[in-house]
Amino acid sequence: MSVSEKRLAEPALIGLDWGTTSLRAYLFDATGEVLATRASGAGIMNLPRPGGFDAAFDAACGDWLDEAPDLPAIAAGMVGSAQGWREAPYVDTPAAADALVAGLVRVTTARGTVLNIVPGVIERGELPNVMRGEETQIVGALAGDPALGANGRAVLVGLPGTHAKWAIVHGERIEAFHTFMTGELFAALRNHTILGRTMAEPAQPDTEAFLRGVTVAKNADRAGLLATIFSTRTLGLTAQLQAEQQPDYLSGLLIGHELSGVQALLAERGETLASEALRLIGEPSLCERYRLALAEFGCASATIVEAAAERGLWRIAMQARLVAAATTQTT
Amino acid sequence: MSVSEKRLAEPALIGLDWGTTSLRAYLFDATGEVLATRASGAGIMNLPRPGGFDAAFDAACGDWLDEAPDLPAIAAGMVGSAQGWREAPYVDTPAAADALVAGLVRVTTARGTVLNIVPGVIERGELPNVMRGEETQIVGALAGDPALGANGRAVLVGLPGTHAKWAIVHGERIEAFHTFMTGELFAALRNHTILGRTMAEPAQPDTEAFLRGVTVAKNADRAGLLATIFSTRTLGLTAQLQAEQQPDYLSGLLIGHELSGVQALLAERGETLASEALRLIGEPSLCERYRLALAEFGCASATIVEAAAERGLWRIAMQARLVAAATTQTT
Repeated sequence: MSVSEKRLAEPALIGLDWGTTSLRAYLFDATGEVLATRASGAGIMNLPRPGGFDAAFDAACGDWLDEAPDLPAIAAGMVGSAQGWREAPYVDTPAAADALVAGLVRVTTARGTVLNIVPGVIERGELPNVMRGEETQIVGALAGDPALGANGRAVLVGLPGTHAKWAIVHGERIEAFHTFMTGELFAALRNHTILGRTMAEPAQPDTEAFLRGVTVAKNADRAGLLATIFSTRTLGLTAQLQAEQQPDYLSGLLIGHELSGVQALLAERGETLASEALRLIGEPSLCERYRLALAEFGCASATIVEAAAERGLWRIAMQARLVAAATTQTT
Repeated sequence: MSVSEKRLAEPALIGLDWGTTSLRAYLFDATGEVLATRASGAGIMNLPRPGGFDAAFDAACGDWLDEAPDLPAIAAGMVGSAQGWREAPYVDTPAAADALVAGLVRVTTARGTVLNIVPGVIERGELPNVMRGEETQIVGALAGDPALGANGRAVLVGLPGTHAKWAIVHGERIEAFHTFMTGELFAALRNHTILGRTMAEPAQPDTEAFLRGVTVAKNADRAGLLATIFSTRTLGLTAQLQAEQQPDYLSGLLIGHELSGVQALLAERGETLASEALRLIGEPSLCERYRLALAEFGCASATIVEAAAERGLWRIAMQARLVAAATTQTT
């Protein structure tokens, strides 16, 4: 477990970003400043045995609670899924922070702490979409940027990753979102298909190869991903793409197809990637790749949001009066 | 090795369809009728050790050659790749049977038989495409159907499989083709991503779930495959798709996206799937799935071609005068 602490003020809230493969714990003071951060691999599919959720919880923040047993606690992410500690049923789109607050589900830990679990969001319809954790990051992105969404403009939030999400936010409400399995598909193609066999790991990311892939995908978006990915191999066979360039080229292809898809979905709403107030949330180097790719789609304004999860946890806890209610538990 | 023999006439030619994971051997009489067929798993990545190519060759047709040592022999497929017995360099599109004949490469086996290896075909350009084996099947499909391509119409040949090919043939020449990694992607998604975790094997193929996937993909083709495949999971989460339906639904999604892509590529040539003289070559139950999917795209005329590989081997051997030259070896 990695630790970063600056204990200058009194702690007021514990926030947990608890996903499938990782757990991050934040200790906030009463102004929302983060006093301490911890990260471990104790995601819900990787819990300590024996002990499970309680043992992971204690390892993450037990000492904080030893010192201040009445600290309120809030968690977001897969911890609220059917496979989590307690299921927090999805709230429907359009969903703003108030709906997340209304949907908080509580579980009492072995040491007696009440952990408030933020629900995920579902968009129903022919092709349902679900998120858990991202809703909290989106709330955090909006909370940290009061000018965002001013003038009634829609805000587009991209969350790159294993299952990338793209959400359209209007008036602080998550109106619609889509899931692109880009990260997981890249790993499956690289590790479990013929495309991986001719690849070599580059010494450093090859931006040129990446952007080449983005451009190919953008130009061939109608033919689709199934038709372009084999070029990773054929460009290698014809000595036009080195083994070390192939991973970044394939990454560019997939992200280019993803952005073409987002572009098409925005077009149905009269929007384009170029015209959006666009925010990116996620692992910094991955967000930077998306920023480069977005520029190829005419979007020069993509801004990377930092600390979105902790800001979202704080914002939801405030709105739920968990912090003010730390000693009275009125929520 | 499976064996099927009807030895009524004198043998005149041995043909081998020799791929990555399988080897099929055909014994022809002088009229092109197949007298005997054998199949084994001795593909070029699965050769007997020790012995390699020669041992696999002897196991497939050594006894035929014992009886008739001067039989000419021809092979198509990955046996002519850089990893094959001898590399038969690709011929460029547009390619007809005469170019394949001109590109035959010969290797002499340990027992002294000259094996003629059919070259693959390459389409150069920004996104090169290559085929090995399919060119012979396409020649076979045309040879078995003299009316095909009459009136100067383009013929569209689909070859479903691990790396599905779609070729546009004009005047018996392969003018252009595309590779869709549909089969391999399906296997990677099913076996190595979250989508497989909620799937169960159906007792029999679920055509309704398959066609549902095709329709979803057709309607969402602009958003693309990355945006639709996650619905396999979310429809399950929302109790709209049973575990046993999920494999066929995902298969339908992928094939639907493939056909949307083919449709888009045809549109660039002023063609549509509905207007094409369309032939399918491949594993019969897979071809039947494609026929069902094609009907959703307005194509009611897709015909499944049988025995394409052996017809192609025969046709190329005839055109190369291998059969007439069986005793004089003038080629």
